[in-house]
Amino acid sequence: MKHFLWILALVVLSTVELVVAQSSQGIDDFKPSEVNQPGKAFPQVNSEGRVRAQISAPEAKLVQLDIGGVKYDMVKDENGLWTGESEPQDEGFHYYQLNIDGASVPDPGTKYFYGAGRWGSGIEIPAHDRDFYAMKEVPHGLVSEVNYFSKLTQSFRRCFVYTPPGYETNADKRYPVLYLQHGSFEDETGWPGQGKANLILDNLIAARKAVPMIIVMDNGYAFQPNDKAAAHARPVSVFEEVMITEIIPIIDARFRTLPDRKHRAIAGLSMGANQTMRIIMNNLDKFSSYGGFSGTSNYPSASEIDPATFLNGQFNDGKNVNEQIDVFWLGLGTKEPEPFPGSVGAFRKMLEKQGIGYEYYESPETAHEWQTWRRSLYQFSQLLFQD
Amino acid sequence: MKHFLWILALVVLSTVELVVAQSSQGIDDFKPSEVNQPGKAFPQVNSEGRVRAQISAPEAKLVQLDIGGVKYDMVKDENGLWTGESEPQDEGFHYYQLNIDGASVPDPGTKYFYGAGRWGSGIEIPAHDRDFYAMKEVPHGLVSEVNYFSKLTQSFRRCFVYTPPGYETNADKRYPVLYLQHGSFEDETGWPGQGKANLILDNLIAARKAVPMIIVMDNGYAFQPNDKAAAHARPVSVFEEVMITEIIPIIDARFRTLPDRKHRAIAGLSMGANQTMRIIMNNLDKFSSYGGFSGTSNYPSASEIDPATFLNGQFNDGKNVNEQIDVFWLGLGTKEPEPFPGSVGAFRKMLEKQGIGYEYYESPETAHEWQTWRRSLYQFSQLLFQD
Repeated sequence: MKHFLWILALVVLSTVELVVAQSSQGIDDFKPSEVNQPGKAFPQVNSEGRVRAQISAPEAKLVQLDIGGVKYDMVKDENGLWTGESEPQDEGFHYYQLNIDGASVPDPGTKYFYGAGRWGSGIEIPAHDRDFYAMKEVPHGLVSEVNYFSKLTQSFRRCFVYTPPGYETNADKRYPVLYLQHGSFEDETGWPGQGKANLILDNLIAARKAVPMIIVMDNGYAFQPNDKAAAHARPVSVFEEVMITEIIPIIDARFRTLPDRKHRAIAGLSMGANQTMRIIMNNLDKFSSYGGFSGTSNYPSASEIDPATFLNGQFNDGKNVNEQIDVFWLGLGTKEPEPFPGSVGAFRKMLEKQGIGYEYYESPETAHEWQTWRRSLYQFSQLLFQD
Repeated sequence: MKHFLWILALVVLSTVELVVAQSSQGIDDFKPSEVNQPGKAFPQVNSEGRVRAQISAPEAKLVQLDIGGVKYDMVKDENGLWTGESEPQDEGFHYYQLNIDGASVPDPGTKYFYGAGRWGSGIEIPAHDRDFYAMKEVPHGLVSEVNYFSKLTQSFRRCFVYTPPGYETNADKRYPVLYLQHGSFEDETGWPGQGKANLILDNLIAARKAVPMIIVMDNGYAFQPNDKAAAHARPVSVFEEVMITEIIPIIDARFRTLPDRKHRAIAGLSMGANQTMRIIMNNLDKFSSYGGFSGTSNYPSASEIDPATFLNGQFNDGKNVNEQIDVFWLGLGTKEPEPFPGSVGAFRKMLEKQGIGYEYYESPETAHEWQTWRRSLYQFSQLLFQD
């Protein structure tokens, strides 16, 4: 009986597949993605930026490629191998997943990256400007994993620390530090992983376009253990306190930093841009430069900002802000969706009204994704510590 | 028509599920595995070591938990949530996967680890002796990612380097080095990841049971670019040459090592035990101690070894081996399958016949898996550099 039912199910399903079958739409120059697992031929990308995924699922009824907010039906061949393609994707890195009979799972062909609140598949659409984050024969800095116990959160936390080429051998030299934060539903692996922060700086330093600097990449989620996040309330972040009273002292004790405000910058993307703007404006004795990549602290509002009240009035005295901050930098992708352009735009208007100087960069043809943020780091880091 | 066929398929499949349904067998004290992704409740482990996996796959016909070489059918509830349990597993870390209608995929509940030639799911069965690799409030060393270009392989390679607590602040101190290799179908992430090499040493050093040392964990796969691995022939490994002429010089230049044979040890697991035994015996001017975890260079043979010919006769002069090697260490799990006990046993007989002193350790109730190797590193590293 069981055997018969399986056969009946298969017959029914085969019919379903014929109904949904479709053929390839793309230019046939697909190549394996550069973030595939060793030896894996799929997923692939073509010159239009289409993604072609493939997975063996002989008994499945429906397999979909889920990328960029769209689920593309894949097609099964006689061997049970499903293949499917997406529409062209933007240049750069994207998270994606497969859907197998309703189960959302990582594609076993790719390496995995933390984003969207999960470890999942990623793909690289080769960008025209990918040279600036390519692995090259230049001196490479180290990325070190630092584990530490946080008294504030009563938990073990972790940051990654980039030390530039020459750090180990120039034992008397001290370096400026950039604190660099990820976005929401990401973690401390974002910048050294898909962000390629180390390669961006290795290449810039080799070309003498950036000052050798230390980069600290920590986790922006920090809560106290007694803050139980009841269903009706969001827990209160203590990330600013962790940054000021735990992370910075640990880094200054363990690495050869220049431990003063002049040689300390802070930046972040999206949620991290919002967090780090608050941190610098509340701690101008600790930091002298700021980078906000696709985010500002008025997020998600696009309304006019009242500098007398916004962030406790920290932008009210524009002259003081200009004197205190060496680099105030904002970046945004030209394809970012609301609320980002609206809230960043409202923030810029406030800066201009207050006469506060700032740099503004737009990443061409990229959305709220890592290519915008790689380019932002590339632009921003060249301006830091120029004295 | 399509809609009708889907409904028919679902009706048929529901019947199939009833046929294969089974209820939970385990003691009901399941807890989330410690290597789950943040916030994920599944997979879970109970006090017997059973693994309970769960995944939403509303349209699937058959979902299985694939662990320890056995595929366990999972059972679907009315919401399309599949749950299934394994038989009790050995203490420690195991690779596993899910199978959804014939597709082998990682479980989206876990962090991912490289083993069996892929990035895939892992689970921890809490071991009675897990304290020795627990994250504790002790000083923690750093694990640093070192990227380098290898001329021999014409490729970028990577190693992870553990520097012990105090390395950064004791700027004049130099340290001995252990070169530590993974097994087949694993990579350089194995020891700092599932192997917990850094935590094992942090805890040993804090307890003053091991000398502070640097540990270098590289990738044991190294081939020349013109060695095209024709279908009929395996490519020839150049790992020994990479180790001697590239890795060691890079490490000695970049880290504060004690760059002599007396302060250099080499060890590995399984394939890595085989490789590193060859490397030390061919390079006694470079290394003075050896650890073979679940492997020896006569693998997979269990035949009697002729020391006059084995490894170019390097074990023929037992007295010389005793003089040259400070620690010669072998370890094996009591549950390891053949050919490991047979080949390690034959190797030990040869050592005894030659009058070569060695240490031998058996990991209780573990197989050819990471708990054996964590324990091996714990035992072995305590004996190193005792002068």
